[in-house]
Amino acid sequence: MKVFVIGVGLIGGSMVLDIKSHYPEAIIYGIDKNQNHIEKALELGIIDEKSSLDSLADADIVIVSIPVDIQLEVIPKMLQEIKDNCLLIDVGSTKEQICKILENHPKRRNYLATHPIAGTEYSGPTAAHLGLFNQKTNIICEVEKTAFKLQEKALEIFSKLGMRIRYMDATSHDKHIAYVSHLSHISSFMLGKTVINKEKNERDIFDMAGSGFASTVRLAKSSPAMWTPIFEQNKTNVIETLEEYINNLQQFKKLMLQNDFTEIYKEMESVNHIKQILYGIK
Amino acid sequence: MKVFVIGVGLIGGSMVLDIKSHYPEAIIYGIDKNQNHIEKALELGIIDEKSSLDSLADADIVIVSIPVDIQLEVIPKMLQEIKDNCLLIDVGSTKEQICKILENHPKRRNYLATHPIAGTEYSGPTAAHLGLFNQKTNIICEVEKTAFKLQEKALEIFSKLGMRIRYMDATSHDKHIAYVSHLSHISSFMLGKTVINKEKNERDIFDMAGSGFASTVRLAKSSPAMWTPIFEQNKTNVIETLEEYINNLQQFKKLMLQNDFTEIYKEMESVNHIKQILYGIK
Repeated sequence: MKVFVIGVGLIGGSMVLDIKSHYPEAIIYGIDKNQNHIEKALELGIIDEKSSLDSLADADIVIVSIPVDIQLEVIPKMLQEIKDNCLLIDVGSTKEQICKILENHPKRRNYLATHPIAGTEYSGPTAAHLGLFNQKTNIICEVEKTAFKLQEKALEIFSKLGMRIRYMDATSHDKHIAYVSHLSHISSFMLGKTVINKEKNERDIFDMAGSGFASTVRLAKSSPAMWTPIFEQNKTNVIETLEEYINNLQQFKKLMLQNDFTEIYKEMESVNHIKQILYGIK
Repeated sequence: MKVFVIGVGLIGGSMVLDIKSHYPEAIIYGIDKNQNHIEKALELGIIDEKSSLDSLADADIVIVSIPVDIQLEVIPKMLQEIKDNCLLIDVGSTKEQICKILENHPKRRNYLATHPIAGTEYSGPTAAHLGLFNQKTNIICEVEKTAFKLQEKALEIFSKLGMRIRYMDATSHDKHIAYVSHLSHISSFMLGKTVINKEKNERDIFDMAGSGFASTVRLAKSSPAMWTPIFEQNKTNVIETLEEYINNLQQFKKLMLQNDFTEIYKEMESVNHIKQILYGIK
């Protein structure tokens, strides 16, 4: 089994590490426009060989794990190159535009749209590790548009990786994920910005910050190259979530200005309910 | 050594657990208005005996770990009860008002204002554990107003608990802590609220949420009884941080509306710098 991974970062790299451990006969070919990443991936045993897009016709499985704007350009071309029984999976954080672009592609049935909810604030091949996907959710969009045998192949792999599958249409995916992922990243980045701007003397931040602050701003370490095109592609949904978030913050501020701490208590108490919702997220 | 702990929750409970492990001769007396907490603390071996404020004259050390509004009422009275060589420490998250109220108290020199940066989203005696303070920062305010011998006693304890000490005036403490702690809590609570309000069908949140979301909203599990009076006491500083945070979010939204994703990339890249600042926070 020849597996090509395009983008040997956290998600792509971890996925082929897992695949190799479950399918020892698999040969992993890596493609990345960052030459250092390719070398690091070879050194770390994430990939067996460096390859190029010219060799895609050899692939049995192609995993595309690159920024979502570049995906839109390259996946249509890649699909043209692959052989008829090859499965091409993308793992991008937005699904609507890529599904739309491929809607009438002659090789649409070779493509499976997925979003494994397994990212962290780290990126690049050094962040890749075995077991990243264990007990994580993988959202699959428009599964019915993928050839049955290729669906089956993909599900076998995801099952071995320990993932639970949720099926969703691409529009719903992008709408919901704006709330539970994209907004969190903006709130983190802007929280980091607010504190950095205010606290010119960084020793003060460092010395007074505890685990709570570290937790709320950890996503501000995320890669701008990955996140800028996500916000761009999911612009309408993200702006909607941002507006609701800003409204809630303004309402909180208003309650403070009115000294209505009884209502502030109630607000927090009702949100405490998130405990039950979050229970079980690793 | 008789140690009285007022409030047998995460901070008070963990502190006496550590003290007992370093001073095996210490007898720990617990006082809490929540009878269940007292019973749980006895059961878990956090305290040796249940006590009451009438017995405070016996104490060598008093640790006050209760909501910051109640502190303002009870600490002045407690100071009147304790003996001359007793040390009374509070561990509240705001320092300006308590220091101001005690400014001219006849027993001011028996009091030490501290803020161990060791809280988590959990509370109550079941959250208490050994080693909570190891390698954490303890901010001490107006140290010069505490009797030298009692400063020395406190520093010995904090040193055994593994804490690093930072000295600060109470006004600066409240101003900085608004940025690196209080604002994080509001951002988390409001993020939780935004998602809960939008996602009526909670299964969707649960299934799509990953570790990033869990990290940014984890502080929304925090106790409203503890946090409402913190926001009230630090109102002016907190409102200032909130305004700056809201402005930054609005600016981000504006860049999105203008399709200025080059600038959004730059914003995120400059905040990435938080990596270096956070490095070392447990």
